[in-house]
Amino acid sequence: MDFLTLSDKYKTPLYVYDLDKVKNQFLNFKEAFSGRKSLICYALKANSNLSLINTLAKLDSGADCVSIGEVRRAILAGIKKYKIIFSGVGKSDEEITEALELDILFINVESEQELQRVESIAQGMGKTARISIRVNPNIDAKTHPYISTGLHENKFGVDTQTASRLYLYAKKSSFLDPIGIHFHLGSQLSDLEPISVAAQKIVEFARSLLALKIDLKFFDVGGGIGIVYEDEKTIKLYDYAQAILNALKGLDFTVICEPGRYIVGESGFLVTKVLYEKYTDKKRFIIIDGAMNDLIRPSLYGAIHKLSVYSKDKLDNTKQSIADVVGPICESGDYLAKDVLLPPLSPGDLIVFENAGAYGYSMASNYNTRRRPAEVGLENGKDRILKRREKFENMVADELRILKGDMNGFE
Amino acid sequence: MDFLTLSDKYKTPLYVYDLDKVKNQFLNFKEAFSGRKSLICYALKANSNLSLINTLAKLDSGADCVSIGEVRRAILAGIKKYKIIFSGVGKSDEEITEALELDILFINVESEQELQRVESIAQGMGKTARISIRVNPNIDAKTHPYISTGLHENKFGVDTQTASRLYLYAKKSSFLDPIGIHFHLGSQLSDLEPISVAAQKIVEFARSLLALKIDLKFFDVGGGIGIVYEDEKTIKLYDYAQAILNALKGLDFTVICEPGRYIVGESGFLVTKVLYEKYTDKKRFIIIDGAMNDLIRPSLYGAIHKLSVYSKDKLDNTKQSIADVVGPICESGDYLAKDVLLPPLSPGDLIVFENAGAYGYSMASNYNTRRRPAEVGLENGKDRILKRREKFENMVADELRILKGDMNGFE
Repeated sequence: MDFLTLSDKYKTPLYVYDLDKVKNQFLNFKEAFSGRKSLICYALKANSNLSLINTLAKLDSGADCVSIGEVRRAILAGIKKYKIIFSGVGKSDEEITEALELDILFINVESEQELQRVESIAQGMGKTARISIRVNPNIDAKTHPYISTGLHENKFGVDTQTASRLYLYAKKSSFLDPIGIHFHLGSQLSDLEPISVAAQKIVEFARSLLALKIDLKFFDVGGGIGIVYEDEKTIKLYDYAQAILNALKGLDFTVICEPGRYIVGESGFLVTKVLYEKYTDKKRFIIIDGAMNDLIRPSLYGAIHKLSVYSKDKLDNTKQSIADVVGPICESGDYLAKDVLLPPLSPGDLIVFENAGAYGYSMASNYNTRRRPAEVGLENGKDRILKRREKFENMVADELRILKGDMNGFE
Repeated sequence: MDFLTLSDKYKTPLYVYDLDKVKNQFLNFKEAFSGRKSLICYALKANSNLSLINTLAKLDSGADCVSIGEVRRAILAGIKKYKIIFSGVGKSDEEITEALELDILFINVESEQELQRVESIAQGMGKTARISIRVNPNIDAKTHPYISTGLHENKFGVDTQTASRLYLYAKKSSFLDPIGIHFHLGSQLSDLEPISVAAQKIVEFARSLLALKIDLKFFDVGGGIGIVYEDEKTIKLYDYAQAILNALKGLDFTVICEPGRYIVGESGFLVTKVLYEKYTDKKRFIIIDGAMNDLIRPSLYGAIHKLSVYSKDKLDNTKQSIADVVGPICESGDYLAKDVLLPPLSPGDLIVFENAGAYGYSMASNYNTRRRPAEVGLENGKDRILKRREKFENMVADELRILKGDMNGFE
């Protein structure tokens, strides 16, 4: 990938996405489940750029959304309403109402109180809400505690006993139509065993629901299949699909998968420029123009992003030494890589962080009044802008209007 | 503070700032240093809302900025250019150029390479750049490692030996005017001793520079004085000022202070609404409409924000139990409080997080396509909007334009 040309054209810091790879990852996923009825719902939380979603919409992707904002993004990007599901532990009344108005595939319900709210809102609208219930299998996915979600000490879903009760309640309600069952163990999963065990456990539970005449049609296995950041082992897609398909043998469910990181993670790069190099008596620092506001994963999760360097000049790899790669933000937590071996670098050289397609831009902020980067896509050998670099004028527009006395309206 | 009325009027999640308290904190700071020439430069990184800065500008505050975006904010908010300083380890050429054009008080230089760039840019503009050099005193401030900045293993400043060389270089240059000296130990400092020792060390160094005929006028002691989040000890403002003033005895410097958190931290509240309450066999969860995208300090730093609850109904405090307070974001890292004792709560009750004025909104993101909260100020018993809740339409405006085919221009 010609990062030097791209950085000249679009400036830095810059997110670059290989859309061909995004498409391949999606098609591989679809292929792995092609043996039966399936719906791959791309998880927007990983990267919600409209053009990127649109690329997947053209391949008939569904969408896994966790806010009404994500539902709107999915629709704007061309995903069919009947392929959109809405999950999350904290849906507001306004979000539930809008989701029902939009007539999406179903709402993934995560608690008893939420079920009652969905019912009451649907009743008020004279509608029947299609729902799925997220069952928490209480299985340790062995990933980072922040992104592990399938244990009873996590806030997600309900236990099987509660789920039984809720399904029976929903079956009796005129305003609820329980058509799906859902579980999700967490993100960046690298071990097949817990997924396999969870799938079997939930299948067994689903059979008990069928016996109670709960007419389930969708079996939603969530997402979370991991990628290689450093040297993690990974789950083979084929093995993953087989584990789930085996568990489902003899059942006439449509399988729903919610991959996010798997689809976009490896396709994304954060391109940054070297500003300065400095030495203290303790350390070597490479100061780049990208920072924790652009990519917070190293600071927040201790995540490792492999990097590579590009220069218009020749790099002297015989003189490598250990350095920290840090950004301009005024705190020591602002680093993108620690203790990496790098050749001598000059201002203007590029440092490119790999595997930055997922949870990169989607978690970016304006900390230190920094503009969020531009996003660029590569497809069939051509580059195109997917989102322009944020403008300072837009960042302060509303505050400035208020400062000048326009206090009308709060929304 | 009547959070119930405010949340009815402005909705939740909502940041509320007590501007009277902001003003008092600033005036106390100014008063503590009133014995000599001083300039209090509010550190915008803590909270850069234009109306809030404007409140301080009216009290003659200066501004400590760490990006050109912050410099622009300071100017828009009415801070005088000759009271603005520009710090940070990673200033780009464009930022240095604009800062010189704007003719602010001085640029705080943090490395040898930066000094050369400032000189070369000033030369190109036919200007003389007023500078200060940030000296890293190599003193442990004993705060969170992410916000500790005064050690040689941190990326900030240069050691005294390097600083000497740079000051002599700058003195000889026609395009550099070294008028200040700067140090800063970190943020949320709770121990006076390291500050006192560092001030003495830097004063001694400044004397050696004066002896070399470096005509220093400003002694910039940075910021970082902490506030009470939980039960930390704090530094008394009077003691802090005295430690610095004592160190400076007999020297004709203008003292510059850069308080941020101290000015706005305790004045801010994040007001959130209870959406659901749920129990697993392991835990009680209160799910609120605020999340880690609104206030990331608990997830990122393990920070504790005291909270209080408000309800239109009577709360039964005889039935309190331990709960985690979590947001709607789809990861287990999304919590705002863990293991707090709370009475039974109902949807619509409020949970208000204290000490949220600093590094709250300024670090907020759109993760999960969540709109950033509104900001409201209270002054002389009246409330007014300081920033409206973000609009979904604005969040996707540029992506949508591009999706519809408008690919012109990348900025």
